Amino acid sequence: MRRRLIVKKFGGTSVQDKERIFRVAERCAADYRDGADVVVVLSAMGKQTDVLIDMAHDINPHPPKRELDMLLVTGEQISVALMGMAFSALGIPAVSLNAFQVAMHTTSVYGNARVKRIDTERIQHELENRKIVVVTGFQGMNKYDDFTTLGRGGSDTTAVALAAALRAEKCEIFTDVDGVYTADPRIVKKARKLKEITYGEMLDLATLGAGVLHNRSVELAKKYNIPLIVRSSLNDSEGTTIKEDTRVEGMLVSGVAADKNTTRISVIGLEDRPGTAFKLFDLVAKAHVNVDMILQSIGRDGTKDITFTIPEDTEDECVAILKENLKRLRAHDLDVNHDVAKVSIVGAGMMSAPGVAAKMFECLYNADININMISTSEIRVTVLIDEKDTERAMNAIHDAFGLDE
Amino acid sequence: MRRRLIVKKFGGTSVQDKERIFRVAERCAADYRDGADVVVVLSAMGKQTDVLIDMAHDINPHPPKRELDMLLVTGEQISVALMGMAFSALGIPAVSLNAFQVAMHTTSVYGNARVKRIDTERIQHELENRKIVVVTGFQGMNKYDDFTTLGRGGSDTTAVALAAALRAEKCEIFTDVDGVYTADPRIVKKARKLKEITYGEMLDLATLGAGVLHNRSVELAKKYNIPLIVRSSLNDSEGTTIKEDTRVEGMLVSGVAADKNTTRISVIGLEDRPGTAFKLFDLVAKAHVNVDMILQSIGRDGTKDITFTIPEDTEDECVAILKENLKRLRAHDLDVNHDVAKVSIVGAGMMSAPGVAAKMFECLYNADININMISTSEIRVTVLIDEKDTERAMNAIHDAFGLDE
Repeated sequence: MRRRLIVKKFGGTSVQDKERIFRVAERCAADYRDGADVVVVLSAMGKQTDVLIDMAHDINPHPPKRELDMLLVTGEQISVALMGMAFSALGIPAVSLNAFQVAMHTTSVYGNARVKRIDTERIQHELENRKIVVVTGFQGMNKYDDFTTLGRGGSDTTAVALAAALRAEKCEIFTDVDGVYTADPRIVKKARKLKEITYGEMLDLATLGAGVLHNRSVELAKKYNIPLIVRSSLNDSEGTTIKEDTRVEGMLVSGVAADKNTTRISVIGLEDRPGTAFKLFDLVAKAHVNVDMILQSIGRDGTKDITFTIPEDTEDECVAILKENLKRLRAHDLDVNHDVAKVSIVGAGMMSAPGVAAKMFECLYNADININMISTSEIRVTVLIDEKDTERAMNAIHDAFGLDE
Repeated sequence: MRRRLIVKKFGGTSVQDKERIFRVAERCAADYRDGADVVVVLSAMGKQTDVLIDMAHDINPHPPKRELDMLLVTGEQISVALMGMAFSALGIPAVSLNAFQVAMHTTSVYGNARVKRIDTERIQHELENRKIVVVTGFQGMNKYDDFTTLGRGGSDTTAVALAAALRAEKCEIFTDVDGVYTADPRIVKKARKLKEITYGEMLDLATLGAGVLHNRSVELAKKYNIPLIVRSSLNDSEGTTIKEDTRVEGMLVSGVAADKNTTRISVIGLEDRPGTAFKLFDLVAKAHVNVDMILQSIGRDGTKDITFTIPEDTEDECVAILKENLKRLRAHDLDVNHDVAKVSIVGAGMMSAPGVAAKMFECLYNADININMISTSEIRVTVLIDEKDTERAMNAIHDAFGLDE
């Protein structure tokens, strides 16, 4: 009979020193002793990845990406080998595996590969021998038999992909926060930890800068319907479970999030004729800049304005390419403002409840906060406001929707 | 048409920092620009292996050897990735490969594996694309798809094994000395660098503590007849070539070496009957202690003494097991002396020239140095003397055989 299988992922701070390594080992040992099969996914220790990147840049300011991945993957391999030794010290059989040993097949893009396929034979074999299997996060191998890395949030993706391939009961992501909150507790004092949240809500929260999980891992969990649990690596509190909505009476709104890494750009006086928007956003895309909200004014005097938001850290590239092409676009002027922030509410319940957006706008009006732009999806309402109003807006919204209850 | 192929191996001190990494890269680039195919084998940077071992022991004083190898191999992988980046900075195409990527198949013994087979397909393919191939030394993979390490001198072995598998023109071993000397220049001021030496002589010198090359790599080079060149990583001097003897008029003696890591143990009053020596050395072997010289006294009063030498760093284990079993061996007593040293002369020419040993003994007699034990092979004479006399003995022998000429 098959034992239940749990995949547990720990980030770099959770394995940064001996004491924490043993804390992780003890935690996994508890599930193991309880009869479960355990697969542990680890990131590189503490700041090890940054140390390696610095070493690389010292040798070559533009290192070949293939060699950079070859270098970076050693970080996770060190973590898993040491964890293997920690389990052995606790008297628990364990084996560490890197991406080649798993094998974790990815696409070929160095620095930002995607998981394609996982061979589970080796892991299954080790689990059958009642070993805890410790797997390197963040890394894979491509069809050329070279190491790849999975980019930001890569170890979370590794964990979810393994949980899917192994049909795990659940995938636990241990972080330095103890779950997903109705808002950032540093900003909204009354913020409350959520017991459950849907994949969709979490996806919108991740995208909107809540920062707990990278959305690639949530997308993957949603696709394979793997319950994801976000919990603290420092204490035993229950955390937040992310899964398909099963709540009969859900809350209207699950949380409010803000993202200050936003710049608003207005291209003014564009010719009001077909193809203008295409030309503009084609240019922006070629600069590898992601556009978020888009607003187009109604044409007047044969011209129109297009306003859009982009991540603030891509502002320079975007503005540079637009300035170069201002004439070609037949635009009069650019207006750039990075003193803006996106504030969003998400909630699966909002789909079937009218008036949620109106309630949000009303509460911002009551707080005397001006709304620059609005964007909505089925389970989300986002407004662009002045950055200085962010904290006030979040608290006002949190109160208005009674998220502390 | 096939280009000539050179395998170049650099130790940890040669890649310990940015400046040295680029020095190595430039050196390899010169051969590459000269039209040769180049395979570079690297050790871990500086003291990296020691750092990793300390990390392991901090977690677990007795780490599983499989996990220790998994940890240690990251050291060489960091070196080769950084070297790949250095080549790229110089505008030279290069690719780094670890043991899995090569693939370097070894036996299964963790910590002390032996190379069984090397797949050369990947390396050949990269060389055909005119890339410099940078390979992790010291490491392999076993039939379980796990990392192994090759033990002491492992990177030299990797280089020679690759040179053999790829039918390289030669294998250059870069070290912190600039070749093989007639004696240790720190002890014998008149010591002279040898231009050539045979595999056999080098093997005896390696075993005898000259310390330039590990004998496994020399044995391998001898087996596949790969010319080995020992040279300095710090300057361009020619170094010493190790190959089959082709000299018509060889020197009688090529060098003199000393080994102070020696303990002499006498087991006194053993019963003089068959099986005594077997029982004694079976015990020693079970303690994993290598026995070097052996001397058995002529039986007298029904008892005999057996004297042998072992590496001084295994003295404790050896003495402990002998003391435990003294009664079972029916021996009276143990005499242990670690203030002794082995001094040896080696020379392929000595096979066909009588009187070499006598000349050595005479010169020690003239220097008033007492000989404890004697052992000889076809191309070697070794004497055990008091450790305090080592330097005097070496200089006297060096002079007597005119090695400075």
